[in-house]
Amino acid sequence: MRILVANANTTEAITAACVASARRAAGPGTEIIGATPAFGPAVISTRAENAIAAHGLLETLAQHAGQVEAMVLAVSYDTALDAARQLMPCPVVGMTEAACLAACLLGGKFAVLTLGTNVGSYEELVAGYGLAGRCAAVEGLAMTPQQTLAEPEAAREKLLAAIEGLSRRADAVVLAGAALAGMDRDLQPRAKVPLLDGIACAVRLAEMLVALGLPKPSVGGYAAPSGRATQGLSPALQRLLIGN
Amino acid sequence: MRILVANANTTEAITAACVASARRAAGPGTEIIGATPAFGPAVISTRAENAIAAHGLLETLAQHAGQVEAMVLAVSYDTALDAARQLMPCPVVGMTEAACLAACLLGGKFAVLTLGTNVGSYEELVAGYGLAGRCAAVEGLAMTPQQTLAEPEAAREKLLAAIEGLSRRADAVVLAGAALAGMDRDLQPRAKVPLLDGIACAVRLAEMLVALGLPKPSVGGYAAPSGRATQGLSPALQRLLIGN
Amino acid sequence: MRILVANANTTEAITAACVASARRAAGPGTEIIGATPAFGPAVISTRAENAIAAHGLLETLAQHAGQVEAMVLAVSYDTALDAARQLMPCPVVGMTEAACLAACLLGGKFAVLTLGTNVGSYEELVAGYGLAGRCAAVEGLAMTPQQTLAEPEAAREKLLAAIEGLSRRADAVVLAGAALAGMDRDLQPRAKVPLLDGIACAVRLAEMLVALGLPKPSVGGYAAPSGRATQGLSPALQRLLIGN
Amino acid sequence: MRILVANANTTEAITAACVASARRAAGPGTEIIGATPAFGPAVISTRAENAIAAHGLLETLAQHAGQVEAMVLAVSYDTALDAARQLMPCPVVGMTEAACLAACLLGGKFAVLTLGTNVGSYEELVAGYGLAGRCAAVEGLAMTPQQTLAEPEAAREKLLAAIEGLSRRADAVVLAGAALAGMDRDLQPRAKVPLLDGIACAVRLAEMLVALGLPKPSVGGYAAPSGRATQGLSPALQRLLIGN
Amino acid sequence: MRILVANANTTEAITAACVASARRAAGPGTEIIGATPAFGPAVISTRAENAIAAHGLLETLAQHAGQVEAMVLAVSYDTALDAARQLMPCPVVGMTEAACLAACLLGGKFAVLTLGTNVGSYEELVAGYGLAGRCAAVEGLAMTPQQTLAEPEAAREKLLAAIEGLSRRADAVVLAGAALAGMDRDLQPRAKVPLLDGIACAVRLAEMLVALGLPKPSVGGYAAPSGRATQGLSPALQRLLIGN
Amino acid sequence: MRILVANANTTEAITAACVASARRAAGPGTEIIGATPAFGPAVISTRAENAIAAHGLLETLAQHAGQVEAMVLAVSYDTALDAARQLMPCPVVGMTEAACLAACLLGGKFAVLTLGTNVGSYEELVAGYGLAGRCAAVEGLAMTPQQTLAEPEAAREKLLAAIEGLSRRADAVVLAGAALAGMDRDLQPRAKVPLLDGIACAVRLAEMLVALGLPKPSVGGYAAPSGRATQGLSPALQRLLIGN
Repeated sequence: MRILVANANTTEAITAACVASARRAAGPGTEIIGATPAFGPAVISTRAENAIAAHGLLETLAQHAGQVEAMVLAVSYDTALDAARQLMPCPVVGMTEAACLAACLLGGKFAVLTLGTNVGSYEELVAGYGLAGRCAAVEGLAMTPQQTLAEPEAAREKLLAAIEGLSRRADAVVLAGAALAGMDRDLQPRAKVPLLDGIACAVRLAEMLVALGLPKPSVGGYAAPSGRATQGLSPALQRLLIGN
Repeated sequence: MRILVANANTTEAITAACVASARRAAGPGTEIIGATPAFGPAVISTRAENAIAAHGLLETLAQHAGQVEAMVLAVSYDTALDAARQLMPCPVVGMTEAACLAACLLGGKFAVLTLGTNVGSYEELVAGYGLAGRCAAVEGLAMTPQQTLAEPEAAREKLLAAIEGLSRRADAVVLAGAALAGMDRDLQPRAKVPLLDGIACAVRLAEMLVALGLPKPSVGGYAAPSGRATQGLSPALQRLLIGN
Repeated sequence: MRILVANANTTEAITAACVASARRAAGPGTEIIGATPAFGPAVISTRAENAIAAHGLLETLAQHAGQVEAMVLAVSYDTALDAARQLMPCPVVGMTEAACLAACLLGGKFAVLTLGTNVGSYEELVAGYGLAGRCAAVEGLAMTPQQTLAEPEAAREKLLAAIEGLSRRADAVVLAGAALAGMDRDLQPRAKVPLLDGIACAVRLAEMLVALGLPKPSVGGYAAPSGRATQGLSPALQRLLIGN
Repeated sequence: MRILVANANTTEAITAACVASARRAAGPGTEIIGATPAFGPAVISTRAENAIAAHGLLETLAQHAGQVEAMVLAVSYDTALDAARQLMPCPVVGMTEAACLAACLLGGKFAVLTLGTNVGSYEELVAGYGLAGRCAAVEGLAMTPQQTLAEPEAAREKLLAAIEGLSRRADAVVLAGAALAGMDRDLQPRAKVPLLDGIACAVRLAEMLVALGLPKPSVGGYAAPSGRATQGLSPALQRLLIGN
Repeated sequence: MRILVANANTTEAITAACVASARRAAGPGTEIIGATPAFGPAVISTRAENAIAAHGLLETLAQHAGQVEAMVLAVSYDTALDAARQLMPCPVVGMTEAACLAACLLGGKFAVLTLGTNVGSYEELVAGYGLAGRCAAVEGLAMTPQQTLAEPEAAREKLLAAIEGLSRRADAVVLAGAALAGMDRDLQPRAKVPLLDGIACAVRLAEMLVALGLPKPSVGGYAAPSGRATQGLSPALQRLLIGN
Repeated sequence: MRILVANANTTEAITAACVASARRAAGPGTEIIGATPAFGPAVISTRAENAIAAHGLLETLAQHAGQVEAMVLAVSYDTALDAARQLMPCPVVGMTEAACLAACLLGGKFAVLTLGTNVGSYEELVAGYGLAGRCAAVEGLAMTPQQTLAEPEAAREKLLAAIEGLSRRADAVVLAGAALAGMDRDLQPRAKVPLLDGIACAVRLAEMLVALGLPKPSVGGYAAPSGRATQGLSPALQRLLIGN
């Protein structure tokens, strides 16, 4: 099975890290293919960048439509997830969506831990999934991605302290944001609750959806568009909007 | 005061209609300027088109940043409203947001009436504004924009029947979607509850915000971005992401 | 356009301050008329006083019915707002309602800041407007109106510190309560988020509603009463309950 | 134990009917005292009347403060309940509140059945009690109180049909409104779910609160007011606002 | 009237304490009968024990079906309350349910205070009753039942400090858990808000339900089962599932 | 990997059908082991039976603790899921929980379709998972399991009509209840939205959780119990409550 792991920003290094993470998580027989948008924000950390990135991400996905069995959005804001799910002919899974749903299978409440102050966007994301009632807290550590790289020991201690605090209210913690990707392996041994990595969860859930072999809805807001006219979009994206 | 009325699709005729509507609604001394994106969907009626249109709309707004006192999004999905509000140096108002908030001032509950089956997107929009508790219903009439033009009499009767039904549950009805823009004037005399036109409400609310003269937040998720790197965006949009 | 600014308590000085504030906020061509109830609480700060004040306020509004184009309730509890909206032949806007709705146009979440411990009443007010999901916090500063007058410098610092704290969670702050009326002008330059004054917002929203020229609903819970019998009410109020 | 059964409108006949109903429901040793406001609406059926009635009702309650062990509000809108609870030195119970809480002890969901179109007010009442999640429906039968008296047989059949419909969604039905008071005895034998009469439930809950002997809170929004200045209120009401 | 007070764990001493508490609270003419399950957890303090205890509790209730007029569940998790309510031919009241509903009659918000860390289970219980909107907080004091017995003075001070803190947000405090049963009498004199004892509230509410004399629903999820086949259950429990 | 598929009722034929369904869904290398409780209801279709069944189910699971890598609850009420999740040393997945979470990955809203009138229990189940906001409807077809077997053609048509109706509001439909198990294969070709089978989803999600290799929480309400005393339980269940 081929799964596309699509970054939503233009930084190739982040794509590469996500692909590596996805390959570690994937089941036997799953091939992971990475993709990076040709234009848009270098890193998404604001509402404005997230909205702009949707276009580039959908262009990227459109290039691979029909060539993979599932797609994973390798961006912790799950950029344009509903649009991609409607437009693509295969299952599409967001990495934060995936981690939150997996966390629901482990206990009563989960928490989301990220870096920076964009807590509101994650709260809206979780609420948009209808999961606000399961989410004990979204915490944004006052630390930049650069700091986690420059002082990894100090960063690890701050993260563990935050996880310790969250574990008083939550039965699982979702690590959100590219800077924390893959850090679950380092942190888990010293955490009292399970830590969830979005890429790993998304790859496994994508495999599950492929295995279930369900059709797309042919009616409603997630049915594939057809006959839509556009201007200035790539042929691949335009083709998906025109439909069969 | 100059207010930009920005369409989110590439159909100039819709921009022109919205501009005309805005001019009728505007207070004395308000100048309305129209704008149409250079690329994207011709008409937005699916989740996929809405996500794609964000980029073109933000490019369009960026061209006018600093040259107007407020911006109105002339698209009933309020495309990329949070991103525009964060990014622009002036107030930005969505037309459906505006009509819903105005409706809150008129009674207890409002309803949203639109054409077509994309009811779910409007429900999510209203819920995203935190107004689900005020919204009695979103109803999508099984009628295309083409039909309203081809058989205006029949369309009017169907709309009035729907409004009659909604007025049993709602104290006001928001007319949503370009096809219904301006129809409030025709329908109001025979309706038992007030009918709200998004463009009119948005222009008046934009004027109010300009009059209040409030600053933008300088912290949090709606503070202007700064220092963001990008690739392949227009100089105008890039400049706003870099900030001063 | 004439707008009535109606106090709900019997303290003329508060009416005068609200009228002054309304005049500063009003657009050109708007005439502000003040009114004070003849009986009821001197200042409303409890649930009991708020319930009692409804009668006197509605009597006051009834005296002006038909002589103004809109009414603003100059009381931060928005006393008897739904009753006034049903009963009066013109738009009625509450000052806290107005500030909360205006705040919705500025970002994702707002907070309410007031003096004293009656936080619960404001929480219920906001929840009653269906806006609990947009309200990050209601904070009641442990300070009396008298203290703000006696030690204005200390009061200002305490308020700014509270606003600073709230701006970590909210994109705008509503200043609620007569004691804080007009203080937005003093505090705004040192605040990181926009501060909203209820009277200013209410006057501007009342102007908007007059400009939109919408009819009242003729059915449902906000349609004007008719044929209601009463005992011991003023002729003006009785007349509105009897209807035409 | 003496329990005041206080009407909120000025119609003595309704007071008498409620008192009779209360006496049937009361336990041995409970004395029921009726009271009728001296001014206000003759019958409350609109938001405006409900707001006006609060004053007269609180005046009435104030006359009896200290002379009864508990008070029951004999008005299905539970007019000014929070204010009365704060102000009076004894427990105060609303009749619809009481029926809804009793219904919670009988199954999962309850419904509210009333006459007329003022469904929205009851929905807001139930939501204000935080019980919206337990309430399957509020149904307003298109029938006036006069019709129930003029054609009792037809009225009974319409009510039973409505109850039959509601019992598909609800495990109990609250009969709300003076016109339905006491009708539970007639209707219950042919109903599939328990029918709740507000006066009966309120009297029994008032007895329970007296038996529990709990103090009033001395802090927060329900603590008795003190030192409040007023104008034009009765000495009895003024005294309660001044406190000891 | 006979009321069964049924413990859900196998510790006879807890049954005896609850029976004593129930007798103090009961009205004249009420006889309290205690019952203890024959198998199951000695003390319920985890989700697992609560689920296991349901069977033993329902066996115990079944032994008394038809011999009492009402049943009170003397377990603060209200174990299997919905099942008991469906199955038994008489009213069934849970002790925490009872205290929460009684608290709703005393003010706007209540809090729940218990020992230990199982705060989540109480939050879910309150939410399951649809009362999350009325509940300001569930607080679990870091103290074991053993500690409250070994150092009663220190325990009392810790409890009073917690109640003091909760009274800033809540108008009443429910004391939950066997270890706090009856402690309301000791603590109330020094508390600023009313303290609610579950057993006392449940007994009084059970008396109220008996006095109201309402039938069980004959349809829906709370109608008595009939014709259900089982294996390995006691004849008494089996008989209730088979029905008449 | 060994996965236990545990029935919660005592009917071996249902266990066998679920095991067969699980085997069809399982990935290569997964061994499915079936288990049936020794006592309890023959078929669970009421609240009372569901509560009673918890004990027998947990006894059954306890017999297999340590011998399988994951457990699936083959009962559409997800009986005692939270207790099992806390108690067992491996992941536990409920079949309706699994189908609902999988449905969240396919669109915006899902619906639940079942036989019979116990709609309320499923609504509470979905709400307990925090997923009420994603669930467009729970529909209970007026048809018994016996009727589906006796007249399969008629049953299929009724089911398809219900699915057609639900697809106007939902992007996916969960088939709930043993009688519908496996029917997704028959119905899917004529349905416009994907149909979800609980057993298939649960087995795949259990495989995912095993693959993720996450630890259990060691704190909070889902940490394994320890040191709990019991009476009359099997040695296996007792051992899990005592812990290591």
